[in-house]
Amino acid sequence: MIFSSSLLENAVNEFAKLPGIGRKTALRLVLHLVKQEAASVKQFSQAVSRLREEIRFCSRCHNISDTPVCNICSNPSRKQELVCVVENIRDVIAIESTQQFNGLYHVLGGIISPLDGVGPEQLEIDSLLKRVEEEQVNELIFALNANVQGDTTVYYISKKLRGLPVKITTISRGISFGGELEYADEMTLARSISNRIPVEQYISQGGH
Amino acid sequence: MIFSSSLLENAVNEFAKLPGIGRKTALRLVLHLVKQEAASVKQFSQAVSRLREEIRFCSRCHNISDTPVCNICSNPSRKQELVCVVENIRDVIAIESTQQFNGLYHVLGGIISPLDGVGPEQLEIDSLLKRVEEEQVNELIFALNANVQGDTTVYYISKKLRGLPVKITTISRGISFGGELEYADEMTLARSISNRIPVEQYISQGGH
Repeated sequence: MIFSSSLLENAVNEFAKLPGIGRKTALRLVLHLVKQEAASVKQFSQAVSRLREEIRFCSRCHNISDTPVCNICSNPSRKQELVCVVENIRDVIAIESTQQFNGLYHVLGGIISPLDGVGPEQLEIDSLLKRVEEEQVNELIFALNANVQGDTTVYYISKKLRGLPVKITTISRGISFGGELEYADEMTLARSISNRIPVEQYISQGGH
Repeated sequence: MIFSSSLLENAVNEFAKLPGIGRKTALRLVLHLVKQEAASVKQFSQAVSRLREEIRFCSRCHNISDTPVCNICSNPSRKQELVCVVENIRDVIAIESTQQFNGLYHVLGGIISPLDGVGPEQLEIDSLLKRVEEEQVNELIFALNANVQGDTTVYYISKKLRGLPVKITTISRGISFGGELEYADEMTLARSISNRIPVEQYISQGGH
């Protein structure tokens, strides 16, 4: 692409650095911004610069935060003794959006994956063990992806916690709502049969 | 989506206002920016704010420009008497990127489309007629999309120019390089047969 404006070219180059944004898409986004009111473009650029300058990570759960301790950790109405262990910030947003979980989180910042060179020491595992020891955590719920890395991480942390008075659970696996049996993979289907639940319990949760 | 950070939420909201960017994509882009160096995020936000504040439109051809007259119009090595008429800025970038055109442009800012409420008076047509009269333009090349609106626009402007000593041409239509005959629409195929060119000319242009 050849531009007759370096301002346009710079902006397109910057957008094209974003993941999944090619140069044609970048140009479309930039030409959209050129057509907007100056005030709304300023709002956009300020939201971006403030984000990077002012964002913090919660010193307790390592979730993204506006303050030194995030507003989930500092909310007294949330169950302080129930901690959900997740891989990243996106998982926190996904679980919060269900509005069904009323405990705290612990963001590992990744998952144990020797092939990618990620070992336990690069993750927030020591800080999790410390929380369990110091904060009277009753239950840890692992909400990690169901794959070898996720299972390894669950296994590693559970082993470290052996002997401590904490209940360890993982989120249930099964067929998605709306998912069709015939297209489910064998592993999921097998697990959903072995972990079957009584119909009364299913119905009391609202069924389908 | 429920966020525990208002900085994060603001930035996601701003990205989600861009065309074709949903909230999940916006979140992915924003979390990417959070992970980047502060300096490179600053560069991104400055490119956006400078773009909107400093961008101009060339007073002669109405192309996007950093200066009152764009660097295409003010380039003395370009043929001042040859003007290519296009619908928008994107078309200028597309033609410039071929590096085959050495004349000037005139950006109409749209195309005559009564159904969308766009008439000749909303477009840069008067300024084009004035350029042809005042600037000794020898040839106008119409590079508009091949549809009813494009044809209407070509017809309208040509009629206005009747009597003036200017040659009027349009870009050729035909089968794309790499395009397969059997999938071409009938109109394109018919035109490409009636506008056939001598093989010697085809070969001298480099053939396929």
